[in-house]
Amino acid sequence: MSKRVIIVGAGLVGSLLAIYLRRRGYEVNIYERRGDMRQQSLVAGRSINLALSDRGIRALEEVGAMDHIRPIAIPMHGRQIHQPDGKEVYQPYGKTGQYINSVSRGELNKTLMTLAEQSGARIHFQYRCLQVDWSANQFVFEKSDGSEVRVAGDLVFAADGAFSAARLQYQLQHDRFQYQQSYIDFGYKELTIPAGANGQFQMEPNALHIWPRKNYMLIALPNPDGSFTCTLFFPFEGDPSFSSLQSDEQILNFFHAQFSDATALMPDILSQYRNNPTASLVTVKCYPWVLEDRFALIGDAAHAIVPFFGQGMNCGFEDCFVLNTLMEKHGSDWKALLQEYQSLRKPDGDAIAELALNNFLEMRDRVANPRFLLQKKIEAKIHSQYPDQWVPAYAQVTFSPHIRYSEALVNSLKQEAIMQQLMARPDIESVWESPEVEAWVIDKLHKR
Amino acid sequence: MSKRVIIVGAGLVGSLLAIYLRRRGYEVNIYERRGDMRQQSLVAGRSINLALSDRGIRALEEVGAMDHIRPIAIPMHGRQIHQPDGKEVYQPYGKTGQYINSVSRGELNKTLMTLAEQSGARIHFQYRCLQVDWSANQFVFEKSDGSEVRVAGDLVFAADGAFSAARLQYQLQHDRFQYQQSYIDFGYKELTIPAGANGQFQMEPNALHIWPRKNYMLIALPNPDGSFTCTLFFPFEGDPSFSSLQSDEQILNFFHAQFSDATALMPDILSQYRNNPTASLVTVKCYPWVLEDRFALIGDAAHAIVPFFGQGMNCGFEDCFVLNTLMEKHGSDWKALLQEYQSLRKPDGDAIAELALNNFLEMRDRVANPRFLLQKKIEAKIHSQYPDQWVPAYAQVTFSPHIRYSEALVNSLKQEAIMQQLMARPDIESVWESPEVEAWVIDKLHKR
Repeated sequence: MSKRVIIVGAGLVGSLLAIYLRRRGYEVNIYERRGDMRQQSLVAGRSINLALSDRGIRALEEVGAMDHIRPIAIPMHGRQIHQPDGKEVYQPYGKTGQYINSVSRGELNKTLMTLAEQSGARIHFQYRCLQVDWSANQFVFEKSDGSEVRVAGDLVFAADGAFSAARLQYQLQHDRFQYQQSYIDFGYKELTIPAGANGQFQMEPNALHIWPRKNYMLIALPNPDGSFTCTLFFPFEGDPSFSSLQSDEQILNFFHAQFSDATALMPDILSQYRNNPTASLVTVKCYPWVLEDRFALIGDAAHAIVPFFGQGMNCGFEDCFVLNTLMEKHGSDWKALLQEYQSLRKPDGDAIAELALNNFLEMRDRVANPRFLLQKKIEAKIHSQYPDQWVPAYAQVTFSPHIRYSEALVNSLKQEAIMQQLMARPDIESVWESPEVEAWVIDKLHKR
Repeated sequence: MSKRVIIVGAGLVGSLLAIYLRRRGYEVNIYERRGDMRQQSLVAGRSINLALSDRGIRALEEVGAMDHIRPIAIPMHGRQIHQPDGKEVYQPYGKTGQYINSVSRGELNKTLMTLAEQSGARIHFQYRCLQVDWSANQFVFEKSDGSEVRVAGDLVFAADGAFSAARLQYQLQHDRFQYQQSYIDFGYKELTIPAGANGQFQMEPNALHIWPRKNYMLIALPNPDGSFTCTLFFPFEGDPSFSSLQSDEQILNFFHAQFSDATALMPDILSQYRNNPTASLVTVKCYPWVLEDRFALIGDAAHAIVPFFGQGMNCGFEDCFVLNTLMEKHGSDWKALLQEYQSLRKPDGDAIAELALNNFLEMRDRVANPRFLLQKKIEAKIHSQYPDQWVPAYAQVTFSPHIRYSEALVNSLKQEAIMQQLMARPDIESVWESPEVEAWVIDKLHKR
């Protein structure tokens, strides 16, 4: 129990992990590359708003952190779809009472850091991971004054994100490390719809707004101050794209033509578009995640994914939750524990990576299709009739933490094949509510 | 024309590239991490013998280097397959007069270094690439005394191999670099069959020897001194594997049972097995390969592949050959040149990576199957009748440098599908030499 634990990175996952480990009595030191964000004003424009859902909530509740988060979370019960003609369509995410939560990454991170410190973890800011001596598990950090510090840990977690410095040191010094970083051809840019004159929301606050435009989309998530954080997901090349929009006129014309209602709420759209950075979207896969009883990757450092299923943070929090159940099971046998952690979580990380990539097409294109919305309605109906047998894929991932991501992926492929067959029926629009259709679907499900 | 060119790495590709660039009048400095191998004795056991074939030969001939290589190359006209029962089967690689060449990586590299220097390139040994300042194209190297040297190049080629340090600096400092390193579950270990008492070969010298054993294999290539360099390709885990063979008895029993004839020629097999390192097998894919008019990856740094098609070096040499044709075409417009280099070579690098992975199964398993050998005979027959219409995949890759790897891959998939259909005929063993069969195959080929 006297293990000295080092966590590299005081982000969302590193901070939550610290709380879990302190509850088990471990000495925990976190080394964070950045300064203390609680003492700084945040740089805007580089953080997609987060959608906290059941997997993340379960992990936060387990350590009593959710009570501190709920006040800063805004429920979103469904998708508010903004069509090109200005019409809006609402699509609920799940059954009544099921929702995801808009939270600010910054606020959430600050809260978790404070809780980690209150639990007895120490956070060392402005420590940049430079080098690792793997034989001694010694990590070398560079401090802000340029000096170097060596720290030895019995057990080290790399929670330092998609471009993990600790993982790079592992990759460079170990043979047979499988590694892949793949970018999609789309980037994103954050924009803000400010609060109204009296601090009121200028659109429906309890929804995730989407402007699906086939090859690109705008989304908006509500903030407690009445504003919305919007994100434009847009190709880097082609027409239209970040490359093709060059002149002020091109930019303004594009926004007015494609997102007229949102643009009307952003009088400063041009300066926002010009000044906010364009960021890229990466998926990182690697293996192994662990080294003996003394090193493990966690969160984005192990499995960075694209944001289209809103699961990046939730998956990282679930890593902590699973580790906790394994600490219960294996006690201090960290070798067995980390092995099981890896063999449980690697397939789930791969699965949510794939689900997240697939969901981009759904969000930017399919949700604009009435046939797709009908399919979702049919699935919701079948779910209400057969709640244990047919759970829509989105709900499995988002509201069913007892279903593993890897199971949800398999189930979703199976269900989608059945639905494709059903939707091909010429009379589907007239018969979809019939018990005969439902029985056919459930029968198919069991036959496969 | 006064461009200062830097090449990182004086390996096979870096040295040949230097010769090409000198012929165009560029100032060329090569920075090599290792010492000068011409002044050192080579460390044995880490270099698969190379199979030089037509793509590589074409690239060497273009600069007159082949005359210096031919004396150290041993022709191999086919595969000599050693069955578990001790019987041997010979399978020619192509038509009479078509062969691949066994060459020692070390001797070839030394020859090319000397030719590069004779052409006016300067090789700086023991310069390790540490850092790159991309804004100034300044490369920082560490010398053997620990001092650092900054060198600026107008044009820099990273020819520093599968684990390219220059590529890593590119990856770390540029957004959206696609990168993948994937290891197969097999490793390799080099072994040596010495020359006979009077320096004679103890097996057929003009063949590539294979002991195919389904999930693993031993191969042997001849050396000019009468010895053979053998390579055991073997799983890391499982039974049998590098992990499962632990005791002296286990090792000896395995070799005697599986490779009795080869083992009889290696009286020191146990110490060789124990002392020679086990190495891993990686495929590296990345993108982009070039930066503006001033940086390009080449050879393994751009496309490291597994060795089972004998094309790693040949592909790297072909990179040089293609660059040369592009220098002819684009003159000093290196921006257009590098763009075309990348768009031509990236799909070919991906294709040979796939072909090489596929050929492992062919070498370790399929060549042991009489049905597969029959299929090869049928293809050879059709090729002799229709030399321009049906070229077996192996010959396209190995003996047909005018066919791009990416075309060869497509063709090979198409041809294999036709052959599978043909081989499914119950009477194939009796009818395969009939004109009717040949006509059917050619007809299929044109229909697809």
